[in-house]
Amino acid sequence: MKILNKKQIISRLDIDLAAQRLEEGFIAFSRGNVQVPPTQAFTFPLANGDCCIKSAHVEGSDTFTVKISTGFYDNPSKGLPSNDGMMMVVSAITGQPIALLQDEGWLTCIRTALAGRIAARLLAPAKVEAIGILGTGTQARMQLEQLASFSPCRKVVVWGRGDNQLAAYRTFASDLGYEVEVTRNPEMLARSANLIVCATPSRQPLIRSEWVQPGTHITAVGADAPGKQELDPALVARVDRIIVDALTQCSQYGEVSHALKAGLIGEQQLTELGALLENCVPGRDNDDQVTLVDLTGVAVQDAQIASCVLGSLEL
Amino acid sequence: MKILNKKQIISRLDIDLAAQRLEEGFIAFSRGNVQVPPTQAFTFPLANGDCCIKSAHVEGSDTFTVKISTGFYDNPSKGLPSNDGMMMVVSAITGQPIALLQDEGWLTCIRTALAGRIAARLLAPAKVEAIGILGTGTQARMQLEQLASFSPCRKVVVWGRGDNQLAAYRTFASDLGYEVEVTRNPEMLARSANLIVCATPSRQPLIRSEWVQPGTHITAVGADAPGKQELDPALVARVDRIIVDALTQCSQYGEVSHALKAGLIGEQQLTELGALLENCVPGRDNDDQVTLVDLTGVAVQDAQIASCVLGSLEL
Repeated sequence: MKILNKKQIISRLDIDLAAQRLEEGFIAFSRGNVQVPPTQAFTFPLANGDCCIKSAHVEGSDTFTVKISTGFYDNPSKGLPSNDGMMMVVSAITGQPIALLQDEGWLTCIRTALAGRIAARLLAPAKVEAIGILGTGTQARMQLEQLASFSPCRKVVVWGRGDNQLAAYRTFASDLGYEVEVTRNPEMLARSANLIVCATPSRQPLIRSEWVQPGTHITAVGADAPGKQELDPALVARVDRIIVDALTQCSQYGEVSHALKAGLIGEQQLTELGALLENCVPGRDNDDQVTLVDLTGVAVQDAQIASCVLGSLEL
Repeated sequence: MKILNKKQIISRLDIDLAAQRLEEGFIAFSRGNVQVPPTQAFTFPLANGDCCIKSAHVEGSDTFTVKISTGFYDNPSKGLPSNDGMMMVVSAITGQPIALLQDEGWLTCIRTALAGRIAARLLAPAKVEAIGILGTGTQARMQLEQLASFSPCRKVVVWGRGDNQLAAYRTFASDLGYEVEVTRNPEMLARSANLIVCATPSRQPLIRSEWVQPGTHITAVGADAPGKQELDPALVARVDRIIVDALTQCSQYGEVSHALKAGLIGEQQLTELGALLENCVPGRDNDDQVTLVDLTGVAVQDAQIASCVLGSLEL
């Protein structure tokens, strides 16, 4: 069995190829060609931690992947990162272990950021005036990095709660070549950006419908578990086109679940990302539509990115 | 992260301590003090294989365990074992990986065999006339090895379908010090043994009620997945005392599920192994009762045996 650490994984991953594999994975998933058993979840209340185990096999693939990802939110006070994780890649031909990817959660971060890039490619307005990033954490950074390779727009507005975090994000985004505006007012962000990525662990709406300009695209990444929410349900109800990574997940706990449960939208308004990719139709009909992609994270992404890492190895 | 291979794991495991830890695990499980998310299952029809992922955390433990176990039934024709697997042990304090146990499925085999030994300790008749083993595979061997350390009886009757397998089992059991009788007739086995272990992948009943003598104890290990069955439901209905490792699992797909679904027994007749262990009451009231323990395999066993392996390490 091969064992790769985070550094080795980062150096081996071809990001553009990974994006392509993710698109293929979303298509296979929406076709029903992926085995995705229900996620296993643990909570560790005394340690302020949780863990989820996601597994997937794409029909026809020689391997399947089991991912363990943990979040222990008191870790930073111990000098440890909050998130950790690893992926096990197993042969779908013999059942033997193929590889252990000790990515410390990095592959989950990058596959999520790449899904954001795919969403923007499909749905962003023709001219991005400014990118708006809600959040200042790892995912908020990786989303901007991926958008940098997709859009020529070099203006970003960043919302966060803390001055230190905003200052650090400003440095990060400046180094990427962006003209940066930081704010603690989400309305300012929503009124000035027409490509918005929400990447916070918020449990209440941060963006209201009336602040969002016609033609805006929103990618909602943060609401990946029950109780999380970044958008006003009235905004979700107003959106012209709603794309979700997985109907089953998003209707239960994704960003759109709140509007669904409130009866503001119906499930027939949701289209899976894989279906949109497969049909090769434009994501939006015109530059006045408001569009939304709700990403909860699907195990097929893990299987695809793991096989992408391994594709560069002699197994 | 520590990585241990099968040989290292075997040399480190204290079998008697493991049996004790398993008993503690069954008790914690029956008390509701174990997080056991639903098992994840894959099937690979083209490769004649399957995989299940079982995870557990025992309240108060510093670690939790995720186990991947595979069965690929065409492997022997490729010179590979049918079963493989590994366990990941993760910190329940920080979420960081602690150890990878590359046991190739051995820990699952031994924890299952130890559960059989616990069952026999609790429920076997005072005088074991002969041990009956249904099956000739790895588990059928490991069950006998564990019973050898529990019971002074050195007479075994073994049922199997193939002459070669029976001959090989005869050699194995003789080497253990047993007087061995092999048979292709399950009735002969059932009529002569009063401690019977069923360890086959059968999908239809092999033992009929009228063959089983008063005072017999039966441990049913084989029916660990939907469709599997080794005992006539009428025999299950006749049993005086039914113990199960997990009510939820056994009522769905264990040996007793067939009698339950046929309405021959009610759930109120089932007692969990952990409850029996905790109450410290005798398993049987007299030497005429027929008793049954239905073992489907619970993830808490994996967590307990993994922590037992690691207990001997400086982490």
